[in-house]
Amino acid sequence: MNRKMVYFLVGRILLLEGGLLLLPLAVSLYYWDGGQIPFLITIALCEGLGLLLCRVFRTDNQLMFAKEGFFVTALAWLSVSVLGALPFILSGEIPNFVDAFFETVSGFTTTGASILRDVEAMSRSMLFWRSFTHWIGGMGVLVLMVAMMPNLPGRTIHVLRAEMPGPTMGKLSPKLKDTAKILYTLYIIMTVLELVLLVAGGMPLFDSAIHAFGTAGTGGFGMKADSLAGYSPYLQWVIAVFMMLFGVNFNLYFLLVLRRFKSAFRSEELWTYLGVILAATALISWNVRPMFDSLGDTLRHAFFQVNTISSTTGFSTVNFDEWPTLSRMILVLLMFLGACAGSTAGGLKVSRAVLLFKTVRREIRHMLHPRAVTSIRFEGKPVDSTTLISVISYFSIYIGLFAFFWFLVSFQPGFDGVSNFSAVAACYNNIGPGLNLVGPSLGYWHYTPFIKLVLAFAMLFGRLEIYPMLITLSPSAWLKK
Amino acid sequence: MNRKMVYFLVGRILLLEGGLLLLPLAVSLYYWDGGQIPFLITIALCEGLGLLLCRVFRTDNQLMFAKEGFFVTALAWLSVSVLGALPFILSGEIPNFVDAFFETVSGFTTTGASILRDVEAMSRSMLFWRSFTHWIGGMGVLVLMVAMMPNLPGRTIHVLRAEMPGPTMGKLSPKLKDTAKILYTLYIIMTVLELVLLVAGGMPLFDSAIHAFGTAGTGGFGMKADSLAGYSPYLQWVIAVFMMLFGVNFNLYFLLVLRRFKSAFRSEELWTYLGVILAATALISWNVRPMFDSLGDTLRHAFFQVNTISSTTGFSTVNFDEWPTLSRMILVLLMFLGACAGSTAGGLKVSRAVLLFKTVRREIRHMLHPRAVTSIRFEGKPVDSTTLISVISYFSIYIGLFAFFWFLVSFQPGFDGVSNFSAVAACYNNIGPGLNLVGPSLGYWHYTPFIKLVLAFAMLFGRLEIYPMLITLSPSAWLKK
Repeated sequence: MNRKMVYFLVGRILLLEGGLLLLPLAVSLYYWDGGQIPFLITIALCEGLGLLLCRVFRTDNQLMFAKEGFFVTALAWLSVSVLGALPFILSGEIPNFVDAFFETVSGFTTTGASILRDVEAMSRSMLFWRSFTHWIGGMGVLVLMVAMMPNLPGRTIHVLRAEMPGPTMGKLSPKLKDTAKILYTLYIIMTVLELVLLVAGGMPLFDSAIHAFGTAGTGGFGMKADSLAGYSPYLQWVIAVFMMLFGVNFNLYFLLVLRRFKSAFRSEELWTYLGVILAATALISWNVRPMFDSLGDTLRHAFFQVNTISSTTGFSTVNFDEWPTLSRMILVLLMFLGACAGSTAGGLKVSRAVLLFKTVRREIRHMLHPRAVTSIRFEGKPVDSTTLISVISYFSIYIGLFAFFWFLVSFQPGFDGVSNFSAVAACYNNIGPGLNLVGPSLGYWHYTPFIKLVLAFAMLFGRLEIYPMLITLSPSAWLKK
Repeated sequence: MNRKMVYFLVGRILLLEGGLLLLPLAVSLYYWDGGQIPFLITIALCEGLGLLLCRVFRTDNQLMFAKEGFFVTALAWLSVSVLGALPFILSGEIPNFVDAFFETVSGFTTTGASILRDVEAMSRSMLFWRSFTHWIGGMGVLVLMVAMMPNLPGRTIHVLRAEMPGPTMGKLSPKLKDTAKILYTLYIIMTVLELVLLVAGGMPLFDSAIHAFGTAGTGGFGMKADSLAGYSPYLQWVIAVFMMLFGVNFNLYFLLVLRRFKSAFRSEELWTYLGVILAATALISWNVRPMFDSLGDTLRHAFFQVNTISSTTGFSTVNFDEWPTLSRMILVLLMFLGACAGSTAGGLKVSRAVLLFKTVRREIRHMLHPRAVTSIRFEGKPVDSTTLISVISYFSIYIGLFAFFWFLVSFQPGFDGVSNFSAVAACYNNIGPGLNLVGPSLGYWHYTPFIKLVLAFAMLFGRLEIYPMLITLSPSAWLKK
């Protein structure tokens, strides 16, 4: 393995993180809320460590393969999380390392699970940094690096492929750097659009920024104890719709920009995604109708909660943990499904579910007519058997790892099965709130440090789609061959 | 499709069921407990309907393919369950049809989930029939038909393949009829051996028969409200060990009979199965140690409960629903794993889990070294890619259907997530008792009729390994082509 290149790129990522920390530093200077020194120290550490890594591991060997891509991705995400936790520790707002690490990983992975007991006691600049990590992690630190940094060495395709969610990566442009730029441009435009609509609806600018970051990254960190319950129906609708939009494959937006409307609206994944949202909203509305005064309220809350879960965001307008079992059950199933590939959302992804369904259907046909040759088509193109095997293997390992994390979390004394199951489901799929003891009105603070670490790793496995973390953590991958 | 042949074979199965019902009839005559007339009527109906089907659908066209095999299997199991429910209804001991159907399906599929509120109020002959269905369903009605009936037309391999669990069917003999005979001979010998050991330990003969049937079929219907808690440690150990033995692939016992010890003890699946049992017993013993007086008691109860779940039997010596979350969690994971292919147990099967693990490991290797060619070996033989795709597709559909059944069951008003999840897990994997409201000390009687039917179908899907039921229930399979 080309280790020098791996550490060099991790150094580059830290340099980038130092730059990104200037924004919360500016916020702390504006509000003068005590975050200045912590942010300055963290920036200095990021830049110092980044420069050191880039200098020590400078190399002319620009060879990069899939393995290097996985290593860079996993190590970069671990590093930015450890350093990103420092402002919380240094400011004393989250003094404990495990807690601060959990919160930062939860931010970058766009999970939104929190160990805070009182989010409203946080300072402005820390709230800002916490939500800004959602925005950075949503589209990806490595994608941002590729978009922004000049003269990146090596074959960065492996880095992008390891970070971007979904079974296939769409190349929007023959040049990777352009693809990354296009993605971030669309991302910024949509975030700003939401921000404007929120401000127009009377939400203060700071609050609007926090919620726009949380929506865009499909993260879910808010700034109120009751998440979005206290905001007006208009604001709730805006956020619900944007959560849905950020769950759509960004390739489709690019097609819209190119005015290739037909291609964009022909997407099988899009219609499946929207169909699922519609069906789930209808079923939940019917189920929770007696709990609300008007049909409008019922539909708004059902639509919001369906989108917060299926886009894996995690905001809430009601405590859905108090809903009947059927509705909670639908939300749990949506947790695993997730949204579209190539979006900022987590979960299994709709395209994988569609491919799984088609594979199983073909398997049944094959049993009935052993000699018939049937090919699987997705988005109008035939899918080769290597892709199919990789999708169904991914599903197997995804379920297997879920069971493993669930097993580890059940070492927590005194917790019930629903809490543990939903905690793992919510962290692994990057959603945030679960049910019972980890429901929207509670949080993750009462887990032991060991379980918090397990859950933080579940978030990283989920956000990076398992393989980068699994390979980097397996001892055999570190052996020289 | 050769429909005539399908209905003809279903007729044959009903004739066989009529014959098997002579045994509980004899029991009712011996105890004179009121079951005589119900059993006589049912026998008359089975024979009448069976003869009618065999006469009307007699055909010279002996062509049979996989599709016919699936249809025969699904329709045969549905028919024997409907007719097998009649004695319970006619005797008035389970007057409601849905309840009686649930109980009979639970018997034949070796699930052991019960809607009875007071099992001790049942008459002897009904208790006997209830447990005898376990024994019949364990090795399979169709396998029995192949073993017993002369001159079966058609290619019965498809029938056997559809009924016998596991990813591959071992042919013990070039002649299928001989394979079926060997299996049933081993099955009878082991059942009798257990019966003798139970009687030797002081259990009354009738009780011993009930429990031997329940163990052999890995079913779990007992005759006491507290299952096996009231019996001596010796009897509990005997049953625990036999549950483990009945979870082993019967091919291995045949190898032992042939004195091919090396081949038998080289089985990867066997050692994985035993390793899992050992590890789970150790972990649970450590976890529940404070709940029992002595280490011996702890080990016995842990070993018993691990085997009752991993062999998918469902007896219990303690109310494991009162155990800590970790132990309950391990039991839930074991529910899905199940025991060995080619045994009477349900669940996913250890061999499938091993193959899934190996596929995922190869997928990761393939990512790291895209050009390396690696083949997967299992039980000393290379596994071709068609088998691999079918194993991982099976896993996908298995999980997908589980989610679907779980979704349907959550329509039950007032039940919590753990109850519903464990109810589906316990029925789908043919175990029996679940957790919370369907725990060992409670039962399934408080579900609505709709949910009971859903769970009964989950049992049939699980026992027949999905495809026969799925194909027979899909409207497109009934269309003529």
